[in-house]
Amino acid sequence: MSLTIVGSVAFDDVETRYGKVIKILGGSASYSGVIASTFTSVNIVAVVGDDFPKEHVEMFKNRGIDTRGLKYADGKTFYWKGVYADDFSTRTTLETQLNVFADFNPEIPPEYAGCDFLFLANIHPALQLKVLDSMKGKPFVGGDTMNLWISTELDLLKKVISRLDLITVNDEEIRQLTGEFNLVKAGLALQAMGPQTVILKKGEHGAILFAKEDMFYVPAFPLDSFKDPTGAGDSFAGGFMGYIASQGKTDTETLRKAMLYGTAGASFTVQDFSLEAIKNLTMEMVDSRFNALKKYITV
Amino acid sequence: MSLTIVGSVAFDDVETRYGKVIKILGGSASYSGVIASTFTSVNIVAVVGDDFPKEHVEMFKNRGIDTRGLKYADGKTFYWKGVYADDFSTRTTLETQLNVFADFNPEIPPEYAGCDFLFLANIHPALQLKVLDSMKGKPFVGGDTMNLWISTELDLLKKVISRLDLITVNDEEIRQLTGEFNLVKAGLALQAMGPQTVILKKGEHGAILFAKEDMFYVPAFPLDSFKDPTGAGDSFAGGFMGYIASQGKTDTETLRKAMLYGTAGASFTVQDFSLEAIKNLTMEMVDSRFNALKKYITV
Repeated sequence: MSLTIVGSVAFDDVETRYGKVIKILGGSASYSGVIASTFTSVNIVAVVGDDFPKEHVEMFKNRGIDTRGLKYADGKTFYWKGVYADDFSTRTTLETQLNVFADFNPEIPPEYAGCDFLFLANIHPALQLKVLDSMKGKPFVGGDTMNLWISTELDLLKKVISRLDLITVNDEEIRQLTGEFNLVKAGLALQAMGPQTVILKKGEHGAILFAKEDMFYVPAFPLDSFKDPTGAGDSFAGGFMGYIASQGKTDTETLRKAMLYGTAGASFTVQDFSLEAIKNLTMEMVDSRFNALKKYITV
Repeated sequence: MSLTIVGSVAFDDVETRYGKVIKILGGSASYSGVIASTFTSVNIVAVVGDDFPKEHVEMFKNRGIDTRGLKYADGKTFYWKGVYADDFSTRTTLETQLNVFADFNPEIPPEYAGCDFLFLANIHPALQLKVLDSMKGKPFVGGDTMNLWISTELDLLKKVISRLDLITVNDEEIRQLTGEFNLVKAGLALQAMGPQTVILKKGEHGAILFAKEDMFYVPAFPLDSFKDPTGAGDSFAGGFMGYIASQGKTDTETLRKAMLYGTAGASFTVQDFSLEAIKNLTMEMVDSRFNALKKYITV
């Protein structure tokens, strides 16, 4: 089944202990869309400026991504510049230019409106609500958010959350959203706010799945080559949502496997800057890492 | 087979966001010994002062621990006082009194010298070497250390490490010891220094096993009740070493299961202060948690 992704397509400047890159392709819809396209047919909804190179759009298309929802607007593409601490424990945003993203008003092309799986990457909750209202049918909806919206748009965000089937959050976000410090309690509290499936992303420390009366843990894939964590969370979501969309089901066994596929997807992303390590990703590569990951955790 | 543990028995004052306790039983040999005694017969080698209550020794004996190696010396018992940050990311030592531990000179009772499994908890590497030299036969030796010895006694410590079969370290220690930031590379580099088995302890983020051409990951056990992480690493080691001693073997499958038993042991310890949650630990309790942990990671 097809997966529609609404999010950002951006330019990033990124610096880590392993290097520095300028004006590279980034954004939540780019990472999640490219990973998900390894598993299933993907539609993306995003906006770019008139400075956005056609070659990136061609790359999306070459991966079978439907880009009818990718709009060109007058102005410059969303731009983010950040630097990671040497131990990757923190990242500092040096500059953010919303540019055309400031007026992003996602329009769901009629061809996407009946899709069965929808992923709302991190955008303003008002826009997430608008997308939800414009869907036909009852897709399985996954959503992401960030601490900014928890602080500034909590009421709207709670409305979004109440309509999600799945949410991805990190430690800080889930504690802020639920007021629970203990992460097990926080997971259950967030499920009670709406989504039956909660994924707690812990970066290099893996991820926890809270599903209906089920908990499941997956570690990050052990890598001896690693360059840049940017896009890891979106890549995880892309692998997870892409896999369940490809299976057309969301039972416990499928969700557990999706945790491994999300992890496998993210593990490729972080091995290079931008989408360099994933733009030619194949199902064979992902399956190989899925199997290695399974061996890494099986007792 | 029996397991001999050389380490500390101490009084701790501990404060966490969940409470504060004064002059409670602590120390690496206490935690690891009590957990290990759930699996196999345990001998401990440690020193306490004349202020050490007989009731603690009785508790050890009630768990079947051989305390002939636990010596009373004139003076006060080793004392440590610490406080954990609200998010448990750091702990601050407020006071350390070595007391009788300053002159600790571990004597291995002849009855212990032929044991098949030995765990050298974190003590001065010169003492660890002395213990190694006093063993008869060729026990399987696990060892722990700390950043202090890496900074101040690196040459001695390297001699110890070259003679270990297994070492437990945390992120900071393994990076400092090997000079490798990447933890996969660091694990391999530490194996090359001697021990075929390296266990990287990541606290609430689980642990990684590097064994002969094998890597295995286990997460921390998910708990909705948690009070104090003190002793978690020693408890992990106690569960790990206790289990492999009980099986009398160290093949890959046994080491992987031991990772789960170590995790299960530690998960009880952190649910209360001191040894309150483990002093009556049974194999049934540990097995129940082993099975729940296995379900939590099986795909």
